[in-house]
Amino acid sequence: MSDLIKQAEQAKKMAYQLAILSTPAKNNALKAIAIALREDVAYLLNENKKDLESAEANGVAKPMLARLLIDEAAVEAMAIGVEQVATLPDPVGERVQSWVNEAGLRISEERVPLGVIGIIYESRPNVTVDAAALCLKTGNATILRGGKEAIHSNRALVKVIQKALQPLQLEFAVQLVQDTSRETAKELMKLNGFIDVLIPRGSAGLIQTVVKEATVPVIETGTGNCHIYIDQSADLMQAIEIVSNAKVQRPSACNAVETVLVHEEIAAEILPRLVGTLEDQGVEIRGDETVQAIKETVKEATVSDYETEFLDLILAIKVVPSTTAAIAHIAQYSTKHSEAILTNSYRDSQVFTKEVDAAVVYVNASTRFTDGFEFGFGAEIGISTQKLHARGPMGLPQLTSIKYVVNGEGQLRR
Amino acid sequence: MSDLIKQAEQAKKMAYQLAILSTPAKNNALKAIAIALREDVAYLLNENKKDLESAEANGVAKPMLARLLIDEAAVEAMAIGVEQVATLPDPVGERVQSWVNEAGLRISEERVPLGVIGIIYESRPNVTVDAAALCLKTGNATILRGGKEAIHSNRALVKVIQKALQPLQLEFAVQLVQDTSRETAKELMKLNGFIDVLIPRGSAGLIQTVVKEATVPVIETGTGNCHIYIDQSADLMQAIEIVSNAKVQRPSACNAVETVLVHEEIAAEILPRLVGTLEDQGVEIRGDETVQAIKETVKEATVSDYETEFLDLILAIKVVPSTTAAIAHIAQYSTKHSEAILTNSYRDSQVFTKEVDAAVVYVNASTRFTDGFEFGFGAEIGISTQKLHARGPMGLPQLTSIKYVVNGEGQLRR
Repeated sequence: MSDLIKQAEQAKKMAYQLAILSTPAKNNALKAIAIALREDVAYLLNENKKDLESAEANGVAKPMLARLLIDEAAVEAMAIGVEQVATLPDPVGERVQSWVNEAGLRISEERVPLGVIGIIYESRPNVTVDAAALCLKTGNATILRGGKEAIHSNRALVKVIQKALQPLQLEFAVQLVQDTSRETAKELMKLNGFIDVLIPRGSAGLIQTVVKEATVPVIETGTGNCHIYIDQSADLMQAIEIVSNAKVQRPSACNAVETVLVHEEIAAEILPRLVGTLEDQGVEIRGDETVQAIKETVKEATVSDYETEFLDLILAIKVVPSTTAAIAHIAQYSTKHSEAILTNSYRDSQVFTKEVDAAVVYVNASTRFTDGFEFGFGAEIGISTQKLHARGPMGLPQLTSIKYVVNGEGQLRR
Repeated sequence: MSDLIKQAEQAKKMAYQLAILSTPAKNNALKAIAIALREDVAYLLNENKKDLESAEANGVAKPMLARLLIDEAAVEAMAIGVEQVATLPDPVGERVQSWVNEAGLRISEERVPLGVIGIIYESRPNVTVDAAALCLKTGNATILRGGKEAIHSNRALVKVIQKALQPLQLEFAVQLVQDTSRETAKELMKLNGFIDVLIPRGSAGLIQTVVKEATVPVIETGTGNCHIYIDQSADLMQAIEIVSNAKVQRPSACNAVETVLVHEEIAAEILPRLVGTLEDQGVEIRGDETVQAIKETVKEATVSDYETEFLDLILAIKVVPSTTAAIAHIAQYSTKHSEAILTNSYRDSQVFTKEVDAAVVYVNASTRFTDGFEFGFGAEIGISTQKLHARGPMGLPQLTSIKYVVNGEGQLRR
């Protein structure tokens, strides 16, 4: 039996216990984890240093090193994060609805944990703690598979978490796949009967691999080729502010805007100011002929640009003749994450929100709000870009399933 | 480009139109289908005859021939079924919840269609009409892939449906995969970007193939290795009635009972009557030593029996020392479909419903009630045995996803 199967069996057994654990017991476990993280900060930093050193030796780029780094502030942020999860309402046990059927049976739909959740991610060690806390709060056992660049950090974090959970006999609630080979990752993706759902978190490449390889149910997260359409009736000053916020505030986020569509009626008026403002903020503009005519610095936007989630200070701009044309462009290139219309027309706002197929559709706001915390969920395990189970920002209820409990008095089916 | 890709592209285009179609327009389309089915009954029976003849020539078994048969009554039942779907409430557009976030954005969660639904099934032509109607009502485009034994029937049914939809310009809402080869089925299972969800309906073998092969999201349906546990405090006369109903009323159904667990305290009292009643109804009993000691007709129950969904007049019976032991047996062998406890103990009813992990958990009722119509949903596309998206009987709302519509006044993320 492989180590992974052994872990999966332990997770499955543990899931039965976690499913019936009381909310206070789960909150106590979370508090114990926060305490342990703070206690063992020196050990965590030390283990993290090993990852940083080998990353540096391998010539890993600066932004990735920053993501890999655990300092004292990072450990404190993790501990606070875990404590915050403890304060959130527990969705498990919630009665979603209840009714009496024709035979007189009382049917109650109640929230239950999913069971065993697999998380596959890259080299952000904070995901380890974050995912473990959210899954524990919702009564799920977790099998974590992080990237090999962060293996020392992840081992240390899971060791500390398990040390905190061990006196409560919950140490198998959070487990780490020790072997970071691709083969073991693939084995994890095919553990039907053990893993109830797999959530990949990271780059588009990682997510696509999981979607293609997994035979267990997957919740696809992440990729956001997001659009903002500036309608002819939009408030132009506000439009420039919103586009600038959606592009510049955090360009590496999946909810950042990648292409702006501008109605031709207002193109001449807004484009010079829009391009100027964005270029002043360091954004490279790629546009169609009309946009290129504004300024010589504007490069040509190709089909490949329209298809790309830049995740960088690059923006494509295209002029369109109508809301319908904007919707058609979005239908062709969107990854169905977050799409916005800026307009003062009631009709266009209705048409856009009805016809655009995306997890979140905005009127007169920045796409950057697609986020579990901004939505008010108090937590986020990821942003689903598929339509099954959950769509958009996923909070705690999205980590649950339901069970029908049926109370009868001897009813037989006729 | 393969024929299948062409169909998938047409389905995807159609899905955008279906998503914004009004409820009356969808209901009119359904009524047109019902009229067309009745008009073309002779054609349908004629095409069905071709399937029946080749099935007979291939020595297909009687029960399968019965499932394949379309007679006038079957067409009328299909038409009535479609009309009933037209009378059900339309879940699309329903506002599930709505709130204002800290930034002052109004966030509304609204039901939308899933998009394109693939249905893979075997040789029941009634599934063709049933699935088409449920998907159309919920604004989804459907790609149907039925078994090769029913290909003439399915072609005829989809032709009649498309004839009815064509004047409404909705003919691509329902399409049939013309080629019934395994290769084309596998191609369908990997149409990411076109198919939003695949629902297999049929045997355990079919469902497992789809789960293993598909890269698009799948809703696993069906297999039910269901248990009834008779606790020591159960009403014994009622228990015999419930077990008999759950086994005999329709043994081929996924919600029929396959193993009965009996508390040892009442074994001596209930077993002779239980075994006698079931044998009188033609049920073959396979039991442990205690059950075998009751009557020489009782065969030995093996581990393989406990693992088997008999779908037949066969029942395994096992004596257990406690509710905990019953729950452990169920955890080991259950397919998490429908599980029941018969008891008059409040405590045991609570423990059982809380600890047993299944789509539907019963107290003092027959497992046969796990059914969309019995639940009062007015429709059923299948019974989900996975925990993602939907669990248990799936009605119309389970054929929808959600979209967040966010109305702002120029909000930027800080």
